Amino acid sequence: MSVQTRTKLKRLPKRAAYDRPTVDAILDEALVCHLGFVHEGHPFVIPTLHARHGDVLYVHGSAASRTLRALGGELSVCLTVTLVDGLVLARSAFHHSVNYRSVVLLGRARLIEDAERKLRALEAFSEQIVRGRWADVRPPSRKELKATTVLELPLAELSAKVRSGPPVDDEDDYARDTWAGIVPLALVAGTPEDDPRLRPGIAAPSYATAYSRPSRPG
Amino acid sequence: MSVQTRTKLKRLPKRAAYDRPTVDAILDEALVCHLGFVHEGHPFVIPTLHARHGDVLYVHGSAASRTLRALGGELSVCLTVTLVDGLVLARSAFHHSVNYRSVVLLGRARLIEDAERKLRALEAFSEQIVRGRWADVRPPSRKELKATTVLELPLAELSAKVRSGPPVDDEDDYARDTWAGIVPLALVAGTPEDDPRLRPGIAAPSYATAYSRPSRPG
Repeated sequence: MSVQTRTKLKRLPKRAAYDRPTVDAILDEALVCHLGFVHEGHPFVIPTLHARHGDVLYVHGSAASRTLRALGGELSVCLTVTLVDGLVLARSAFHHSVNYRSVVLLGRARLIEDAERKLRALEAFSEQIVRGRWADVRPPSRKELKATTVLELPLAELSAKVRSGPPVDDEDDYARDTWAGIVPLALVAGTPEDDPRLRPGIAAPSYATAYSRPSRPG
Repeated sequence: MSVQTRTKLKRLPKRAAYDRPTVDAILDEALVCHLGFVHEGHPFVIPTLHARHGDVLYVHGSAASRTLRALGGELSVCLTVTLVDGLVLARSAFHHSVNYRSVVLLGRARLIEDAERKLRALEAFSEQIVRGRWADVRPPSRKELKATTVLELPLAELSAKVRSGPPVDDEDDYARDTWAGIVPLALVAGTPEDDPRLRPGIAAPSYATAYSRPSRPG
């Protein structure tokens, strides 16, 4: 993996990580990403879905499709994924922080036009979100495939940033009477809710009743 | 509030919402935002903190500060906030979705230079993240204030998007034997973890032991 100048971290470089296992684990755990692109000189950032497939990231591109087609099917993008792991409560306001894991991926996203590859990408989105679901549902029709915009972005120019552990205070502040520590945070699934139009006698599958992130193995 | 052409939604307009109470509630619940800007023609998207103060959004701007200063303290940005509320499992792959609430805010972000206003913004970040914490901690020193970059962005050109409720399937698919429904998701706090260097006899405050989002009232 090449790490280009653009993704080298200028600030707090100790938090930087470039190894692919770290990057892949963050991408795989994240349910949504934020896709940034430039349209008529202005930045746009939209939440969308992604799924990793080897050294390529598939990105659900419907919201960017107008811009994409205007540019001939190729778009310079920045895709960012952020997982929040906890609040870091220090003794001083200044040293408060958030424990998080993020990935920034830069590159040129291309439209996937080939129907077979698009189908594979949709399966990857589905497995990224709920592993095991794809086999249970009606696959996309030709018309539905056509109505879906999928981008691919090489996993080439990227970096991860990770902050973990307790607060780090100025030495003088450790004498203060203030509580300090971590409030852990996680995206947690509740009890599945049946569709009001569900036919009687169909139980929720285990991928729904025991849902957790990441939905797919690392 | 003016809604400009740029933030009018081209796709799925039924999901659009422009009223300020909806927008404010989403901004207030979100712990992180994604800030997009253009640097030398390329898009960049970085996770950062935000806090609403009336008709202004304060944004923690350290990661964008180099670009900002190069541009004379003003930057065209797109700030996006996304809350994931659940997975929408339909009977067809195509109609799978995510229940979410998002806000997209466009505009020109400006550096806050005035120390008094900067201090107010840092208090707003703190209260946005953990309400009640500010009163318990050592306030920023003059040097710490100087080391922090804060942007302000008017809450003017914006839109919200909300998807909620059960899946919507094609009429033919309701006859299928597939379970369909919602898997609710929420960012949930765990038990606070004391800093290993915490002085004995200091208990975690209720804003840590009973933490939930939003931390501040709507």
